[in-house]
Amino acid sequence: MKKELLDEYIIAPNPDGVELTKTVEGLDHQGNSVRSQVIEEKPLTIYLNSQEIVTAMTIGDYPEYLAVGFLKNQGMLDSLNPVISVDYDDDLAVVVVRTESETSFEEKLKKKTRTSGCAVGTVFGDMMEGLEGLKLPTSPLRISWLYDLSSKINRTPSLYLAAGAIHGTVLCQENKALVYMEDVGRHNAVDKIAGWMDSHNVSGSDKILYTTGRLTSEMVIKTAQMGIPILVSRSGFTAWGAEIAVKVNLTLIGRMRGQRFTCLSGSDRLIWDVDSENGDDK
Amino acid sequence: MKKELLDEYIIAPNPDGVELTKTVEGLDHQGNSVRSQVIEEKPLTIYLNSQEIVTAMTIGDYPEYLAVGFLKNQGMLDSLNPVISVDYDDDLAVVVVRTESETSFEEKLKKKTRTSGCAVGTVFGDMMEGLEGLKLPTSPLRISWLYDLSSKINRTPSLYLAAGAIHGTVLCQENKALVYMEDVGRHNAVDKIAGWMDSHNVSGSDKILYTTGRLTSEMVIKTAQMGIPILVSRSGFTAWGAEIAVKVNLTLIGRMRGQRFTCLSGSDRLIWDVDSENGDDK
Repeated sequence: MKKELLDEYIIAPNPDGVELTKTVEGLDHQGNSVRSQVIEEKPLTIYLNSQEIVTAMTIGDYPEYLAVGFLKNQGMLDSLNPVISVDYDDDLAVVVVRTESETSFEEKLKKKTRTSGCAVGTVFGDMMEGLEGLKLPTSPLRISWLYDLSSKINRTPSLYLAAGAIHGTVLCQENKALVYMEDVGRHNAVDKIAGWMDSHNVSGSDKILYTTGRLTSEMVIKTAQMGIPILVSRSGFTAWGAEIAVKVNLTLIGRMRGQRFTCLSGSDRLIWDVDSENGDDK
Repeated sequence: MKKELLDEYIIAPNPDGVELTKTVEGLDHQGNSVRSQVIEEKPLTIYLNSQEIVTAMTIGDYPEYLAVGFLKNQGMLDSLNPVISVDYDDDLAVVVVRTESETSFEEKLKKKTRTSGCAVGTVFGDMMEGLEGLKLPTSPLRISWLYDLSSKINRTPSLYLAAGAIHGTVLCQENKALVYMEDVGRHNAVDKIAGWMDSHNVSGSDKILYTTGRLTSEMVIKTAQMGIPILVSRSGFTAWGAEIAVKVNLTLIGRMRGQRFTCLSGSDRLIWDVDSENGDDK
């Protein structure tokens, strides 16, 4: 069954990847020595052409997807100026993303930094801007797909099951889990999905994004920017996350456990094809 | 019992705080309409003197502690140039932290941004610098304190129990939980603790920091910089977090559930005063 489960994925987690976890010596609660499997966390510096953009902490798999997805999700890439190469240097822990012509981002970054001090606020403001006029497609969501996906994803061998302390994000289509990325930060996992989509020209319009992380404003904004109309999590909501989802008509489903969930936005996409009989307690 | 539990805290969570959560209308898994309590998440802009530093996303309680703690943990405040005022403007969602003289940070920020593009990498590099020569005190940690704290913290009424999607951090001393902060980001919760400590001149040397979040490098670095020798979490580790803990001799305890835990660093502080008999399965 595990084998069949994995066959469905284009990219599945790799819990046995030697460079993704590390065995560390420690003590247990009785003072006995234990060997504990822990997640790797390494710096990766992302360049856009000649401009150093950020150093992200990551488990280290799919650095090219992470770089492209990060830049894409920060609004630093656009379709008029396509990516022509992505070079990863393992020794230097550097990825250089090159576009056809130099971007305007170097100049923009200097100007913005002068006015608002630090990239965090700036980037966030930019992300909100990108949502104006965004229309997400009216693609349907069968409840049976949700239950299938949730069950499959929870049974998929992952770094989370092996070592914990990690977030997962899965790109899905109907009841199929396609690309399952994990990383120390939930944003990296989403960015790797975005990078994969961008690199393979995959549209978000008929996709579902599943995340283990919380449904915060930033997660909702990223999903919408990736053109994905449906975001699902086993975790909970923030108020602003729910508000933005309503604004852009994204279907937002949280607290997904077994056959239970809460939908706080975009319930018009739902198709109730499952006869639920387990709703008597909360 | 709940009442007694709360009496111990100097600051306890406030799950009934009207501005911290919001009730949102949605649907449950059967298509019935439900009212769901979700966490608030609002932008707060932090200024250091006349320099805008960052816009953080926060639940919105204790903005002054968050601002001071954030600046402190980023190495932007030092003891030679004390904070003289902290002003919070509710309408503008702005906190201004003023120091005796202007800091060198404005100039520094400009210079660093030119070389490394974005504050994320820079700030991280600075944080590592601050650890050179740091010596954490050899204060003891009784296992019985750990079990007491874990049980108390888990039973304390909190936003987490009310609405989920939030991280908690608790400053403890021996078996007493003193200050319990929550926020949408685990870093905000720790920063609010740091701000409280700084504002009340509280030393970290005899304290224990408990967090619901993962034990990543940044969390270990922050704890060490706050002068706290012991960091405990119910969640797991990253490899770099464990490595840095060893380097600065911080006691790092993770996967704390009931009477079980794993200690990956600084076990010389542990005093085994509990006769554990429940260690037969893993």
